[in-house]
Amino acid sequence: MGKVAADISMSLDGYVAGPDPTLEEPLGRNGERLHEWVIELASWRASHGLEGGEENASSDLIAEGLASTGAVVMGRRMFSGGAGSWEDDPKAYGWWGDDPPFRKPVFVVTHHEREPLVLGETTFTFVGGVEPAVEQATAAAGAKDVLVAGGASVAQQAVRAGLLDEMQLNLVPVLLGGGTRLLDNLASDIELERMFVLDSPSVTHIRYRVARHGR
Amino acid sequence: MGKVAADISMSLDGYVAGPDPTLEEPLGRNGERLHEWVIELASWRASHGLEGGEENASSDLIAEGLASTGAVVMGRRMFSGGAGSWEDDPKAYGWWGDDPPFRKPVFVVTHHEREPLVLGETTFTFVGGVEPAVEQATAAAGAKDVLVAGGASVAQQAVRAGLLDEMQLNLVPVLLGGGTRLLDNLASDIELERMFVLDSPSVTHIRYRVARHGR
Repeated sequence: MGKVAADISMSLDGYVAGPDPTLEEPLGRNGERLHEWVIELASWRASHGLEGGEENASSDLIAEGLASTGAVVMGRRMFSGGAGSWEDDPKAYGWWGDDPPFRKPVFVVTHHEREPLVLGETTFTFVGGVEPAVEQATAAAGAKDVLVAGGASVAQQAVRAGLLDEMQLNLVPVLLGGGTRLLDNLASDIELERMFVLDSPSVTHIRYRVARHGR
Repeated sequence: MGKVAADISMSLDGYVAGPDPTLEEPLGRNGERLHEWVIELASWRASHGLEGGEENASSDLIAEGLASTGAVVMGRRMFSGGAGSWEDDPKAYGWWGDDPPFRKPVFVVTHHEREPLVLGETTFTFVGGVEPAVEQATAAAGAKDVLVAGGASVAQQAVRAGLLDEMQLNLVPVLLGGGTRLLDNLASDIELERMFVLDSPSVTHIRYRVARHGR
């Protein structure tokens, strides 16, 4: 069995999405700046069918993550993004297009049940809570890892429920001044142990082992 | 003329002091955990008249900072700490004892004027705002640097007023869950450029160059 890990980009003031999200800017004002670093990377671009890009330590880290991940857990808003909710449009399948870049089982945490959705090489399965989503993802991943991809709410829920073995923060040197914070309202009984730091001008990756007191 | 730099320890959830500060725990609940890493270091201990301690990259960084700093700016609460305010006790000179470890000019930002205070080899000068405090510290430091040592309010004010050239965050892998955040309510027109990252198991130092749009 692999590990369960979150991997999320955070501003220096702790936000994983900016303020005032809209259909045009689902990550909120300036929220896209959190992901500029990854869009430049060769390994990320290749997984999205794009050519070129930078080869550096961050690119290697992304490539390793892609190779070791056997299943993905995400929240409903990360799934449907700017496309609104599917209660209004049952055919809506979010902003990932006809050929989502995951190409492995994705488990979407949602209170609104629906049948699994197959798009290209990716199957989205809809699960009523983060605990069963991680459980099903763990089974689907086999020996590989489960990636809790976001957003903030699902990542928070996974930490709080003690489901994460590791958390990788990609710390971006921007200040968003508002939005959704990853590490708010967490139980104080969580202990973090830094595993490694990997650094480039545009992002500082810090991976932590997550432990809880008394467990 | 040297640079003006802040150097401050921050929890992973962005706090530079914990919740519910008291006379016994002026840094708030668990706030002392932010400074455990520094108390272990040989260079910090030597500056406080203590023997022993660890020699590592963090220790070298502290030693370099001590050597390059010509004057210090701090807030009134950092000066008086758990000792209460000197309006009640004009003789109170805070928690730094008879021989404070600074041994260079210290400028304390306060609305309550008082005569300079000489304790051991350290002179504390009391100034009515962060801008004149940094100005006087810059003059006193000569070719050396000005260190904005904290607390959160003075560091925030210095960033907002565009006084900082650099900011070093010492990111500690703890979650305080509440308290005083360093990077809240900052103008969004601040740009940060990462200069370097230095890493140990107990703390990740990230130094940023601070710039503002349109300046």
